Amino acid sequence: MIACPLPLDRYPQILLAHGGGGKLMGQLLKEVFDAAFGAGAGHDAAVFSPPDGALAFTTDSYVVHPLIFPGGDIGALSVYGTVNDLAMAGARPLCLSAGFILEEGLSVATLWQIVQSMQSAAQICGVKILTGDTKVVERGKGDGVFINTAGIGSVPRGLRIHPDQVEAGDVVLISGDLGRHGIALLAAREGLELETPLESDLAPLHGLVADLLQAGITPHCLRDLTRGGLASALNEIAETGGVKIAVEAENISVCEAVDGACELLGLDPLYVANEGRCLVIVSPRESEKALEILQQRHPQAARAGVVTGRSEQKRGLVTVNRGGVSRLLDLLSGEQLPRIC
Amino acid sequence: MIACPLPLDRYPQILLAHGGGGKLMGQLLKEVFDAAFGAGAGHDAAVFSPPDGALAFTTDSYVVHPLIFPGGDIGALSVYGTVNDLAMAGARPLCLSAGFILEEGLSVATLWQIVQSMQSAAQICGVKILTGDTKVVERGKGDGVFINTAGIGSVPRGLRIHPDQVEAGDVVLISGDLGRHGIALLAAREGLELETPLESDLAPLHGLVADLLQAGITPHCLRDLTRGGLASALNEIAETGGVKIAVEAENISVCEAVDGACELLGLDPLYVANEGRCLVIVSPRESEKALEILQQRHPQAARAGVVTGRSEQKRGLVTVNRGGVSRLLDLLSGEQLPRIC
Repeated sequence: MIACPLPLDRYPQILLAHGGGGKLMGQLLKEVFDAAFGAGAGHDAAVFSPPDGALAFTTDSYVVHPLIFPGGDIGALSVYGTVNDLAMAGARPLCLSAGFILEEGLSVATLWQIVQSMQSAAQICGVKILTGDTKVVERGKGDGVFINTAGIGSVPRGLRIHPDQVEAGDVVLISGDLGRHGIALLAAREGLELETPLESDLAPLHGLVADLLQAGITPHCLRDLTRGGLASALNEIAETGGVKIAVEAENISVCEAVDGACELLGLDPLYVANEGRCLVIVSPRESEKALEILQQRHPQAARAGVVTGRSEQKRGLVTVNRGGVSRLLDLLSGEQLPRIC
Repeated sequence: MIACPLPLDRYPQILLAHGGGGKLMGQLLKEVFDAAFGAGAGHDAAVFSPPDGALAFTTDSYVVHPLIFPGGDIGALSVYGTVNDLAMAGARPLCLSAGFILEEGLSVATLWQIVQSMQSAAQICGVKILTGDTKVVERGKGDGVFINTAGIGSVPRGLRIHPDQVEAGDVVLISGDLGRHGIALLAAREGLELETPLESDLAPLHGLVADLLQAGITPHCLRDLTRGGLASALNEIAETGGVKIAVEAENISVCEAVDGACELLGLDPLYVANEGRCLVIVSPRESEKALEILQQRHPQAARAGVVTGRSEQKRGLVTVNRGGVSRLLDLLSGEQLPRIC
């Protein structure tokens, strides 16, 4: 980790003036953002030449609390989260934008740690942070820092990965165990002492998708299991794709620490957020090879269920079987855990 | 203005649960965002086919206060602001992303007004809002709504509009009178009674740029005059381009209401933000034709000054002449007016 070029003893905190378009703002842009992302990441439009073909475009704002959590921070999350959204469309991530909303009083050392973490994450994913923006709001009108990233990726010719591609008989694979991100955040936030220390599963998923495509597999649908967890992802796919899905609880891996915390707190791990897990829906023909590839990256990757048929209804589309008893896996009304991403 | 499909009597305010990934969030996405932007504006990656050639990519977060102001609102601002950033790179705007950070307790009617205004603005600019995201933060951790938009535009082959293209002898044109946005906001915020009611100059600038390019003019540099106003834009260009610039105060138009308010408040209109004005730096050969095109859109468009030479220094690059006396037009240290965009 390199030292922040902005003298932290003179500027320990973000001031409103850091967002005003004057000298202080110029200094912040140069000595924090340009220093981390490279001087190319101008604060106006960046011009680039994409490869031929279709592009994927996505955006996410990140408001996670706390800013720094076991296994990651808002900076890495803001890169991996958007890279993962691109990967879920089958796209190779090319570049990101980064928009910061800073609260007056934010520690400049914290900001520096976050932007360095973003830059490391971007390097790991092979994407450039091409363009950015910074705003400052008064104390009590924000919460430290919010980050928006938008991402552009290149989509292989003719590839369409979408719930509308899902067919009866397709197999639902999960790329690893569930619930680490949500529970790690909750534990950090509430000062819960878990028996086994737990880290977020935060990780980029573009490599896994590249491996699948490289092996000649065409996933019908991919979905990262963030807000609302596996249950919400399955419901959304089932509704959009007009299909019914049944999963087997005993095939879904949940580590002891997550399981214990969920029991204690009355949470269902199937609804808890992850930031480095996805589901992969493939034809039965390709499912074994796909599972093998997932397991090379994570031993807990598993075949979680199947698409049982088509449906015209909008409700009751997803079921989970536990010890021979099948029950509805519905959407929750609201949230289990606010601000986990 | 069409009615909001979300029943406002049952859901008058945004709840934390609207950001949780469950049913309430699904309803918000469908009955507010999809209803305004069209169902295509999915909340995952959107896939599109850009025209051949280079693309421009930009982002801005909008934290303007108040959310609705004379002459506009945060919704229209979030579209025109980003469209203008693309236009300043000579790009034809293609599509936008939209990321919302909502504060718990926000009036759903206000949100509906804002997203409708975004959609109107997008239609005026011929851009699509392709992809979006919504987060909700607790009361007191945000300020109503913050919006991030990122934009993608198509850059004509071989065109480079950048401070490094600016040459000694180039002419600096301004597209209209200055200071309306900043003063209109300040007046609205502080309850100032101006003699003449004043509206923001908020407007898209892509049409003006298209007119210039259509007429065969190649601007060396374009810059919208937002945070920090004309003075900051000139300083940034002078520093990046390594040139000296001199402007004539008497050529720069400021309306009576802005002039009066600035005098009263001790502000210099050359530092006040605009949201529908830009500067155009062109070769002397093309300057008259360019000015004519600007004046077709705004009678107060004017030749404000010239690029007097190259410079290796980083300071004292921009001067303003008032009645024969030339003084430095330096960057301010901080901000005159916080949260004007």
